[in-house]
Amino acid sequence: MMKHRIGEVTLTVLGPDGHPFADRVVTVAQQRHDFAFGNIGFDFIRPVGGPGQPGYFGGGEHIDLDTLADAWLGLFNTATLPFYWGGYEPRRGATDAVRLEKTARWLAERGVTVKGHPLLWHTVQPDWLLGLELDEVEALTRARIRDLAGGYAGLIDVWDAINETVIMPVFSNGDNAITPLAWDRGRIAMVRMAFEEARAANPGATLILNDFDLSSAYEILIEGVLEAGIRIDAIGLQTHMHQGYRGEEYMQKTLDRFARFGLPLHMTETTLLSGDLMPAEIQDLNDYQIPSWPSTPEGEERQAAEIVRHYRSLVGHPAVQAINYWGITDDGAWLGAPVGLLRADGSRKPSYDALAGLIKGEWWLPPTEMRTSADGEVTVSGFFGDYTADGVAFSISPGQPPYPAKILLNS
Amino acid sequence: MMKHRIGEVTLTVLGPDGHPFADRVVTVAQQRHDFAFGNIGFDFIRPVGGPGQPGYFGGGEHIDLDTLADAWLGLFNTATLPFYWGGYEPRRGATDAVRLEKTARWLAERGVTVKGHPLLWHTVQPDWLLGLELDEVEALTRARIRDLAGGYAGLIDVWDAINETVIMPVFSNGDNAITPLAWDRGRIAMVRMAFEEARAANPGATLILNDFDLSSAYEILIEGVLEAGIRIDAIGLQTHMHQGYRGEEYMQKTLDRFARFGLPLHMTETTLLSGDLMPAEIQDLNDYQIPSWPSTPEGEERQAAEIVRHYRSLVGHPAVQAINYWGITDDGAWLGAPVGLLRADGSRKPSYDALAGLIKGEWWLPPTEMRTSADGEVTVSGFFGDYTADGVAFSISPGQPPYPAKILLNS
Repeated sequence: MMKHRIGEVTLTVLGPDGHPFADRVVTVAQQRHDFAFGNIGFDFIRPVGGPGQPGYFGGGEHIDLDTLADAWLGLFNTATLPFYWGGYEPRRGATDAVRLEKTARWLAERGVTVKGHPLLWHTVQPDWLLGLELDEVEALTRARIRDLAGGYAGLIDVWDAINETVIMPVFSNGDNAITPLAWDRGRIAMVRMAFEEARAANPGATLILNDFDLSSAYEILIEGVLEAGIRIDAIGLQTHMHQGYRGEEYMQKTLDRFARFGLPLHMTETTLLSGDLMPAEIQDLNDYQIPSWPSTPEGEERQAAEIVRHYRSLVGHPAVQAINYWGITDDGAWLGAPVGLLRADGSRKPSYDALAGLIKGEWWLPPTEMRTSADGEVTVSGFFGDYTADGVAFSISPGQPPYPAKILLNS
Repeated sequence: MMKHRIGEVTLTVLGPDGHPFADRVVTVAQQRHDFAFGNIGFDFIRPVGGPGQPGYFGGGEHIDLDTLADAWLGLFNTATLPFYWGGYEPRRGATDAVRLEKTARWLAERGVTVKGHPLLWHTVQPDWLLGLELDEVEALTRARIRDLAGGYAGLIDVWDAINETVIMPVFSNGDNAITPLAWDRGRIAMVRMAFEEARAANPGATLILNDFDLSSAYEILIEGVLEAGIRIDAIGLQTHMHQGYRGEEYMQKTLDRFARFGLPLHMTETTLLSGDLMPAEIQDLNDYQIPSWPSTPEGEERQAAEIVRHYRSLVGHPAVQAINYWGITDDGAWLGAPVGLLRADGSRKPSYDALAGLIKGEWWLPPTEMRTSADGEVTVSGFFGDYTADGVAFSISPGQPPYPAKILLNS
C-alpha cells in the first residue's frame, strides 16, 4: 500500500582512500521525510517571537518552549504560520512582521519548512478595510499579497494563496471587505488575483488553493481555474473533523475526485478531537462556542486510533504530498476544542505516540547498522527522504537515482 | 415592478390615402408576448406526430387534441420538445425524427417557438451506448449534437445544450455512458463539447446551459465556462418544486446570484403541485415512486395561489427572459405527480385560470378601441410583444423605437 512512498538505493561505500570498503559496518539513519508532515507553528510565536497583541488562536501560555519544541520537532517537518490580515495588520501599516519573521527563522534553523497561511481570505479581517471602495480594497489586497509573498521569499516559499474561495462571495457570517469584492469580481478573478500577485513576487513559491468545501463546487472551481490558465501548485483540502472522523472510504473517494486534476493534494488543516464531538447540525464551526471542552480518556483513545487510520489512508494515496495537522496542544486551540496531540499541560496524549509510531516508527528508518558486500555495496530501502550513512548524507528519491550512489566515508 | 417589461409607442394612423387619420377609432390588440411563456409540448407528439414507442412521460392519452391545443395555445408561446437520447434513438440509427419534426412543425405553424431538450445529458440514455470506449462515446455524442442542432435548424433554434452538468461526472443513480465521459474529460470540457458542436451546426441558435443544482457549484461552473471562453446564450434554472414552493425571497436571491453574469435567465423547468408534496428528504426526485398521486381541491387552490406568486416574482426580475412550465396535464405527467394546469380528464384547474389571469389578463392588452388624436396619433402602452391596430401589425420593444411608428390602414 505504501510502495509509492518507498524507494531503494544501492550505495557504494568508499573508504577515505577512495576505494570500495568491503565488509564494513555503517550506520544508516533517516534524517527527514520528503513527505510534508506538518502542524501549525502558531504556538511558537509568543515564546520565540515575543509577546504581541492577543487575538490569535494557538496562543497557549502554559507550556514552556522546550517541552513544546521537543514534542513538535520530534514529529513534524513543516510549520504553518498565521498571516491573517486582521491579526497581521490590525492597524493599517502596523504589521506583526518582526515576530513572524523571528519565528519563521527559528523554525527554518531547525530544518523546518515554513508555510504561510493565507494570503487572501474573507475571515479574520481588519476593521479598517470596511467601508473602503472596492477598487481600493483590491489594490490593498494585491499589495498585501505581493508584500508577504515577496518579503518572505527564501524564508517562506509555501503559501495558502487563497482560502475558502467557494464560499467567499456569499459568506454571511461576518462583515468583511473581501466578500463584496469577490461578489463583484467573481471567484476565479479572486483566485487569479492571489496567484498572479504571489507568483510575480516569489516565482519559486509553492502556491496552494485551499478550501474546506470538498463538494462538487470545489471540483468545479478548480476546473474553472485551470481552464482560465491559472497555474496552481497544489490543491488544499481542509478536514477539520470536529464533528467526527469521516472514515477511510469517504477520504478515498474524496481524494480520488480531487486527484483527477493531476495536481498534488495537500491536506492543509487536519483535526481529530479527543473529547466530545461537535453536534452535526452546526454549519459554520465558528458558531459553536462552549465554555469548556475537555479532553477525555475515552476521547483520547478514539483520537489515537483515528489518527492512525487517517494518516494511513492519506499517506496510502499517491496524490497526497502533505498533511498538516491543525494543533499541537489544547492550550489556546481554535474554538477551545481538544484537538491537540498534547494536553493543555504539555503532556502527550496517546495520539502523539500513535502518530510517532507511524512517522518516526513504521515509516522511518532509525539508526541501523548495515554491513557492506565484498564490492563495498549496501542496499538501503525506505521512505523517500534524506538519510545518512555514518554521517554522510544521501537521499532516496522517486524515479531513477540522480542522487549520489557512492558515498565517501571520512574515516 | 413590471416597468422593465412594458413599453410605449405612439402610432401615427394613416388612412388608405396616406394621410393621418384624425379622430378615428382603431382596435388595438396584443398578439404575442416577447417574454417566453412556455410549457412542454410532449403531449402533442402522439396526437400530432403519431403513435410511437412508449417511454416518454407526457404521453397522456385521455385528452383529445382539440381540448389540449385550446388550453395549451391559449396560454403559451414556447414549447419544449424531448430529444432524450434514449427515447429519440432507442436503437442505434433508428430515431424518432419523423414524429418530432411533425410535432415541431405543427407547433411552429401555430406561432409557437419550439425548443429542444436536451442535446447532452446523462439520464434517459440508450442502452446501446453502454460498454463503448470513451472516445467512441464522445464521437457519437458530438455527432448526435451536430445532427440535432443542424438538422432542425430553422425549425428549432432554441436548445438546452447541456443538462445537469454539475452532477454529471458523479451521477450515481443509473448506469450510463455520459457520466464516465464527464468524469474523464471534466465538466467544462463537456459544456464546450455541447456548445461548440451545436454552435457550429446552427450558429443562430439560442443555446442554454441548464441545471437543477442552484447552489454555488452551478455559479462556479458558469464562471469557469465563461472564463474558458465558451459563449452561452442563457442560463437555465430548473425549479421542480415537488417538495413545495420555495417562496419569493429564495427566488429573488437565487435570481440575483445568477443574474450577476449578465446573461438572460431561463426558468427552464417549473412545476408546482396541486396535491400532496413529496417528502423533503428525497434527494433525487426520480426515486419517489408512489402508485397514485391525486390532485386535491386544497392542493389545487394552493397551486393556483403559488403559481401567481411565482410568476409574478419571476417576471418581476429583469434578468428573466423565459419561464417554461413543466406539464400541461396530469395525464402521463413525470413521476405521476399532479403538476398539470389541467386535470387528467382535461378540465382546467384553478391554476390554469390564475395563470391566464396574468399572461392573458393583467399582462396582456386585449382588443381595445382607441381613438386617434387630431394628428392621427394614438399611444399604446403594454408588455413588449407583437400587436395589431385594426389588423395591422406593430410591436412594442425595449429601447428606442426602431419599429414602424406609422401604420397604414387598408380601409
